[in-house]
Amino acid sequence: MSILESISCSEDVKKLPENVLDELCGEIRGFLIENVSKTGGHLASNLGAVELTVALHRVYDTARDRIVFDVGHQTYVHKILTGRRERFSTLRQYGGISGFPKPCEAVDDAFVAGHASNSVSVALGMAKARTLQGQAYSVAAVIGDGAMTGGLAYEGLTNAAASGEPMVVILNDNNMSIDPNVGGTASLLQKMRVRPGYFEFKRFYREAFSHTPGLYHFNHNVKEWVKSRVLPDNMLSAFGMEYMGPVDGHNVRQLECVLRWAKEMQKPVLVHVITKKGKGCTYAEEHPELYHGVGPFDPESGEIQNSGTSFSEIFGEKLCAMAESNKKIVAITAAMASGTGLDQFARRFPGRFVDTGIAEGHAASFAAGMAKQGMIPVFAVYSSFLQRGFDMLIHDVSLLGLHVVFGVDRAGIVGSDGETHHGIFDLSYLGTVPGMQILCPASFAELREHLEMAVTDMTGPVALRYPRGGEGEYKMASREEEQIIREGKDVTIVCCGIMVNEALSAARILEDRGISAEIVKINLIAQKEYPLTMASMQKTGRLVAAEEVCAAGCLGSRLLSGACEQKIQLKGTRLLNLGKGIVAHGDRKLLMRDHGIEAESIAKAAEELCRQTKL
Amino acid sequence: MSILESISCSEDVKKLPENVLDELCGEIRGFLIENVSKTGGHLASNLGAVELTVALHRVYDTARDRIVFDVGHQTYVHKILTGRRERFSTLRQYGGISGFPKPCEAVDDAFVAGHASNSVSVALGMAKARTLQGQAYSVAAVIGDGAMTGGLAYEGLTNAAASGEPMVVILNDNNMSIDPNVGGTASLLQKMRVRPGYFEFKRFYREAFSHTPGLYHFNHNVKEWVKSRVLPDNMLSAFGMEYMGPVDGHNVRQLECVLRWAKEMQKPVLVHVITKKGKGCTYAEEHPELYHGVGPFDPESGEIQNSGTSFSEIFGEKLCAMAESNKKIVAITAAMASGTGLDQFARRFPGRFVDTGIAEGHAASFAAGMAKQGMIPVFAVYSSFLQRGFDMLIHDVSLLGLHVVFGVDRAGIVGSDGETHHGIFDLSYLGTVPGMQILCPASFAELREHLEMAVTDMTGPVALRYPRGGEGEYKMASREEEQIIREGKDVTIVCCGIMVNEALSAARILEDRGISAEIVKINLIAQKEYPLTMASMQKTGRLVAAEEVCAAGCLGSRLLSGACEQKIQLKGTRLLNLGKGIVAHGDRKLLMRDHGIEAESIAKAAEELCRQTKL
Repeated sequence: MSILESISCSEDVKKLPENVLDELCGEIRGFLIENVSKTGGHLASNLGAVELTVALHRVYDTARDRIVFDVGHQTYVHKILTGRRERFSTLRQYGGISGFPKPCEAVDDAFVAGHASNSVSVALGMAKARTLQGQAYSVAAVIGDGAMTGGLAYEGLTNAAASGEPMVVILNDNNMSIDPNVGGTASLLQKMRVRPGYFEFKRFYREAFSHTPGLYHFNHNVKEWVKSRVLPDNMLSAFGMEYMGPVDGHNVRQLECVLRWAKEMQKPVLVHVITKKGKGCTYAEEHPELYHGVGPFDPESGEIQNSGTSFSEIFGEKLCAMAESNKKIVAITAAMASGTGLDQFARRFPGRFVDTGIAEGHAASFAAGMAKQGMIPVFAVYSSFLQRGFDMLIHDVSLLGLHVVFGVDRAGIVGSDGETHHGIFDLSYLGTVPGMQILCPASFAELREHLEMAVTDMTGPVALRYPRGGEGEYKMASREEEQIIREGKDVTIVCCGIMVNEALSAARILEDRGISAEIVKINLIAQKEYPLTMASMQKTGRLVAAEEVCAAGCLGSRLLSGACEQKIQLKGTRLLNLGKGIVAHGDRKLLMRDHGIEAESIAKAAEELCRQTKL
Repeated sequence: MSILESISCSEDVKKLPENVLDELCGEIRGFLIENVSKTGGHLASNLGAVELTVALHRVYDTARDRIVFDVGHQTYVHKILTGRRERFSTLRQYGGISGFPKPCEAVDDAFVAGHASNSVSVALGMAKARTLQGQAYSVAAVIGDGAMTGGLAYEGLTNAAASGEPMVVILNDNNMSIDPNVGGTASLLQKMRVRPGYFEFKRFYREAFSHTPGLYHFNHNVKEWVKSRVLPDNMLSAFGMEYMGPVDGHNVRQLECVLRWAKEMQKPVLVHVITKKGKGCTYAEEHPELYHGVGPFDPESGEIQNSGTSFSEIFGEKLCAMAESNKKIVAITAAMASGTGLDQFARRFPGRFVDTGIAEGHAASFAAGMAKQGMIPVFAVYSSFLQRGFDMLIHDVSLLGLHVVFGVDRAGIVGSDGETHHGIFDLSYLGTVPGMQILCPASFAELREHLEMAVTDMTGPVALRYPRGGEGEYKMASREEEQIIREGKDVTIVCCGIMVNEALSAARILEDRGISAEIVKINLIAQKEYPLTMASMQKTGRLVAAEEVCAAGCLGSRLLSGACEQKIQLKGTRLLNLGKGIVAHGDRKLLMRDHGIEAESIAKAAEELCRQTKL
């Protein structure tokens, strides 16, 4: 039996003798590479966090103490050590374990994660609750240097420092988030990295005085003085947190020693840990960005299976083509240049490319400032992450009616990343922004047309909403606001974006069952009346709206409200959507089936509707 | 003619001889006190910014250069100096000039403002646009120390520092935002304030070398060295911005000199200016929090007209009463303790009161952490500011179904603060949050009942939505989800919250006109079916929904969609609301009339509807 197989909780990790820890870490790395090469997932960040996670379990009891992981894709090792090793082959798959922390999966997962920079705030809340209730558990946040670029982390850190609450913030600094870091914080961390002397001094100092408490306290001011001389100016100590580091993040014993000390200090402490993404796996160390979130690959060579052309790539290509002649175009990303297909733009037009770090709010306000002064900013961002910029969309972009274009990527169900990453609230929150116009391209060709319309022909705030992955059977393109793409007489099926593929399949199924479905494809969602759609509903008397979004603010509901206002009398309706918007992880088609929005379910709903209303 | 009367633009300020500037500042202060004592408005912050604003106009041309004011309530002096002096008696009134910068009002207002911490991001966007277009104007952001507690400011500052863009960030540091500042940044600024030596040194240094360019550049490294010795560790220089200060914010000449220098440096510079809120007005200096946003007052004594009991006060009182026996209750504010009525709670339960600074996102995530560990956090926040926490509401609060209570204050039209402050998007964005339940109390008594329900009886995320100011004729309280408060047969009028007062008046007007209106008051908005309301609509066949929110996600639209799904055939409907959600400033009743949602308009719409549908 391997060491790893003997472990199912923090207690088991604590019982191991020090001299087998390196072997354990080696086993974990092998296990990670073997499994992630099959399931796909976040490889590089987990390889970088092996020793840190083992050390965390040596110092904390994750079943009782609260370890809040930021972003959360680096918790595979934590999952492997807390009873989920045997289920690891189901990672990120339908019905399997999640790629992110989930309290419903294990008591060891203190909180949900998925969006960056919330861990310090959440951990501070937990620490405060603990203190108010007179309980004794420990609280820590584990946050990457990438997530430190988000304003929420700053809010959390300043509040944590001021609170005096005993808690530890562990900065897992691998000098890159997904794309290389940007901003002042990144260069600050860079500067700190070159001064490793402080940690060694502190350790020596502690050991020298640890058996003489009086002397230790007497010397506290000396420590402060020394820190001010040895450490560079830095934000972290400026905020008033006790700073410890930098620590070698691949030395379990050193990590264990520092974490134990930090925990004992009973005040807000920041431990600065230096790790290497992809550690121990040559191809992942050399190309950590390729093995960040990766599909299945060859565990020997690292060769990654080709995943086909994506909407993101088409978006990036078309934007480059337009930027060639239109010098006003500026492309903006919030730390997702590759994910949003902007990497080519970044290389070709470096002066007109801006990576803000994980700062969607800033990116939106920054874009507004540019638009006010005559540029055409195009901010490509994942639907679920743009939620962070909701207020800026209203306050900074829309009140002045500024022409900012949002490439809202990963709209709809994203699949294996799960509930924190699905882009299923955007029709609702974008629809709330005054004057926002939402284009919903359904094919690569249509994305190209719509991007051109958005940049060149339209004014005011415009969003283009497109999914993760590639196109389906539908390859057409239209600049119309709404279109009948299939005529029928019994029932109107309304859809937008790639849901058109499901609608088309559903219509064929229905045809076989003797029902004639008309398909309306809506390309532009805004506060408008949809006359073609209303006429179709009037004609068939039945509406089925099939949407890959939550119920609140969905298109179907707007259409029904409009039909009611226009006194269009319908024999019956079915709104098929994702309900309140909590959707698990796994294969997109399976999730769609669960929520009844794939072709077969649409056909079934339409058929029932027709039968019940006496076709 | 006074000096002030001779000024209508930056050019005029520049022409003044240095020796009359103090006199000008005195005149401005007199003008401010005289006018704001009549109109009400933001007094203390403007008194503190007199010299700074005059200096800005000496150095910049606000018609061409772009000065982005953060929050914007400190721009009265700027407005007075740029052609709006004679209209100043109309400040914040219906049809009058706005209390915040508005580009539509004058070319000198570079951008909108109202929500905190966006100025650096916007200014950076403008600076980048300027550089890309090869233009030559200057860009500056003016940001208060309060707004520096917001994460968006951090995102802006780190990006500005990394960009190298020539721009100046002016930190107007009066050591308090609306309530005394909190957080690590506040104590950092405090620390810097006690080291005024640096500025004097820099000035001496510059003067000594200014005529010897070679020597000046040669000595650049010395300057850096000196800065590192003289300045305390600080975040601002750590971010990589050139730091200048602290500067006496009430010395126009010193300010002018430093601002001119900062502008000339052609890189990102932060100028740290120390001002005093209320400067030059005894009562405002002594109680700046009282004269922050103030109603009319006596200009001699400072005595403020009593504005009557508010929903906020009732909320604070009731929460205190509950917290006495329920030790799990924790109250949270984002720098608005007085505004949200939590000041009493802060005094009585300091250990269970948390002021996060202007950090709504953090406050929501922090509350989620507390709730996860068994406390009952109650976050009181203005509706419009909670937009900043939208993503945290979904990601941190709702995915785990955590029991966090949101006191959503200033819901609906807030009046004189205008378009950035109206709480009219909340039904839509709160309605998008999975599982969120929205209570809409219409009276003080009902607020007490609903707060008790929210804290004690309900689970999961709950919001209470209540307005600025006091209650109307309606004084009842109900714990029902929906109720018929007036029976009728011709038309159903649906309302929630204090709109019930308008509905009741409308029903009386209609009665005089021979129309019998039924009033349905909805108390809990969630994803539900509203059976009583549906039955009423079924009965009368007509719906008028009168709401103080934007059209997107409004209750009326949800009801129509529901009616359509349930095949309730209506003779006609009228959705009365605030359309796309851009509403000006001024008296609430007048704004309501403009948008057709006050009693008379409701009655008129209902009457027309009845006549058109053959009553």
